[in-house]
Amino acid sequence: MTTVKLWTDAEVEADPRVKAVFDDIRATRKSDFVNNFWRGLANQPQLLERTWASLKEVMVAPGELSPVVKEMIYVAVSTVNGCSYCIHSHTAQAKAKGMTEGMHAELLSVIGMASETNAIVQALQIPVDPEFQA
Amino acid sequence: MTTVKLWTDAEVEADPRVKAVFDDIRATRKSDFVNNFWRGLANQPQLLERTWASLKEVMVAPGELSPVVKEMIYVAVSTVNGCSYCIHSHTAQAKAKGMTEGMHAELLSVIGMASETNAIVQALQIPVDPEFQA
Amino acid sequence: MTTVKLWTDAEVEADPRVKAVFDDIRATRKSDFVNNFWRGLANQPQLLERTWASLKEVMVAPGELSPVVKEMIYVAVSTVNGCSYCIHSHTAQAKAKGMTEGMHAELLSVIGMASETNAIVQALQIPVDPEFQA
Amino acid sequence: MTTVKLWTDAEVEADPRVKAVFDDIRATRKSDFVNNFWRGLANQPQLLERTWASLKEVMVAPGELSPVVKEMIYVAVSTVNGCSYCIHSHTAQAKAKGMTEGMHAELLSVIGMASETNAIVQALQIPVDPEFQA
Amino acid sequence: MTTVKLWTDAEVEADPRVKAVFDDIRATRKSDFVNNFWRGLANQPQLLERTWASLKEVMVAPGELSPVVKEMIYVAVSTVNGCSYCIHSHTAQAKAKGMTEGMHAELLSVIGMASETNAIVQALQIPVDPEFQA
Amino acid sequence: MTTVKLWTDAEVEADPRVKAVFDDIRATRKSDFVNNFWRGLANQPQLLERTWASLKEVMVAPGELSPVVKEMIYVAVSTVNGCSYCIHSHTAQAKAKGMTEGMHAELLSVIGMASETNAIVQALQIPVDPEFQA
Repeated sequence: MTTVKLWTDAEVEADPRVKAVFDDIRATRKSDFVNNFWRGLANQPQLLERTWASLKEVMVAPGELSPVVKEMIYVAVSTVNGCSYCIHSHTAQAKAKGMTEGMHAELLSVIGMASETNAIVQALQIPVDPEFQA
Repeated sequence: MTTVKLWTDAEVEADPRVKAVFDDIRATRKSDFVNNFWRGLANQPQLLERTWASLKEVMVAPGELSPVVKEMIYVAVSTVNGCSYCIHSHTAQAKAKGMTEGMHAELLSVIGMASETNAIVQALQIPVDPEFQA
Repeated sequence: MTTVKLWTDAEVEADPRVKAVFDDIRATRKSDFVNNFWRGLANQPQLLERTWASLKEVMVAPGELSPVVKEMIYVAVSTVNGCSYCIHSHTAQAKAKGMTEGMHAELLSVIGMASETNAIVQALQIPVDPEFQA
Repeated sequence: MTTVKLWTDAEVEADPRVKAVFDDIRATRKSDFVNNFWRGLANQPQLLERTWASLKEVMVAPGELSPVVKEMIYVAVSTVNGCSYCIHSHTAQAKAKGMTEGMHAELLSVIGMASETNAIVQALQIPVDPEFQA
Repeated sequence: MTTVKLWTDAEVEADPRVKAVFDDIRATRKSDFVNNFWRGLANQPQLLERTWASLKEVMVAPGELSPVVKEMIYVAVSTVNGCSYCIHSHTAQAKAKGMTEGMHAELLSVIGMASETNAIVQALQIPVDPEFQA
Repeated sequence: MTTVKLWTDAEVEADPRVKAVFDDIRATRKSDFVNNFWRGLANQPQLLERTWASLKEVMVAPGELSPVVKEMIYVAVSTVNGCSYCIHSHTAQAKAKGMTEGMHAELLSVIGMASETNAIVQALQIPVDPEFQA
């Protein structure tokens, strides 16, 4: 149950602006499958275009971090934000890009450990050590 | 301004249970510097012992993820949780373990991008695609 | 699946204290429909009364912000808090009070943009400029 | 205390890529003042360029929501995310764009009310009414 | 550095509506000290009145939970919300109402443990067992 | 729909390391029922062992806080973190350990009130009173 309509392929085909983004998603990912996130964003073509352009720049373009590391960071952020859809989609993408069961276990451990110490530090209101100055 | 006292080295020396943990932190990290987090936790020896034991297992023991990747995930979690102290301490540790300026820039981009799409997905209440089933 | 019982109309009718609040909700909203939130709160009559009184004062009483703007702010807060129910109910109310598709698209864009820059600012720990002093 | 260097005007002048963005910020805002957020982002020119381009599209370009409403939504999101810097900067901008004391008071009331009911709804795990279906 | 003015005692004295609330805070708490939260809320008399009335009903009126337990729950919520001011003020009040060092240590342990398992559960997207049905 | 497999009893029986933890959960809780959280964690034996050991120390071992108070604090944290599974499981456990309807109503009131004032305090950026210094 969404707050907007999810666009079908037929609806996408009928709208050149939306179709152009979907075509690029398919070409970039070398797959016909376009997930629901983009079908919801299709209602807002400008937001759709900008979000896909940013995602390509951040997640697809080559850089110093490997694709699997970027996906694991995405999972970590999505977990703390409690975004169920994003946890599912980026865990699937992390696995597709090489996250092993062992890496997943360590990712979970770091997320859990960080969340625990974050909370304790907040409760104690620990002041930043001058040694951590950038 | 903390909600508990931060222990000085003299106070640590006088308490064998706390001293044992501080000694192990110094030996493990090969450094005399013990940051404020542990000086606040010293008020709760059992929590201090358990937290340090977990941190050693999660962050220090070798695994499939490299130390710098684990620190970057820690920074991502701490950022979303808004823990200022943790952002400072783990950014410093990530740099010490090899995070370059370029890696830092990509980490920031992924954290920002994930936070943006997390929020949009939540606002749209997008249903999980069956293709993401584990 | 809730953690408390949702009250049926028959159960509401049988409890004068709860009935009085439901009657006022129906009269104020000029509608027979009372949504599940109030049916869950009915288990705690004092909390039910106080919450409805506050909601009337904040969301129904006339003020300087228009009803649709207040509903959009409610959606923004609910989105960041990840409250699925609240996102659905207040998006529906925002639409009922005049939120167009274009306004919805801009709301989503601002929520997403703010969430992205919030996260980057936190990761960078930017100090507040003195120019922003109230 | 930031996790990166804040660029001075002299440093900005010496880097054409960063200077181009700062020039556009100054021209767009018709003001010489460039706040610390951009001075921190200057370390990551690509992120700087993309963030400013997005912000112009979302917050500066004309649309259906007035500038002051967009700033108030920004404040609401920043408040829930606990971003102190963002609360200060966007409250200042909301005031500059016409937020009166009365509007500020109502904004605070809606943010508070939404946060309270969000939490209660989560604790009760209220199911979404079919009436809210988009 | 606040986003609104903090009212001095002289300013409070000069405004009968605000003065009435401050007088009741002082009488209820049997103390002349009124903390900064109320001095900031004084700018919005209606919000000030409603917030104090709610707080009296929730935190001061006798009920089934003891005052110290209510304050510890307040600290737990404030910690997860990352509200530094609230952590300080309610930790102080919890101590004033009888929270011992041992109770504080256990509170910290539960907050940390819950935050850790919350995050792991989210990352795993564990389905609710039917046995937990209310 | 989880991101990992949930282990059946047969799978648990076949893995001595996992079986040992499940046996201890059953013995400690004096019940054959093991909830889904542990069936998901079974994929990561080391995390399973450490999490159960910590939970026993924090939630089961006797201390100064009663079991029902610890469960209510757990519910408060889980609510703010928006962990649906955790809200269900710990509300059930709180009820099993003696939380009455009246205590539940007060818990909800405190969680709601704290969330409301947390948000208002953040929006106002109230400075900590020196009187709250530990």
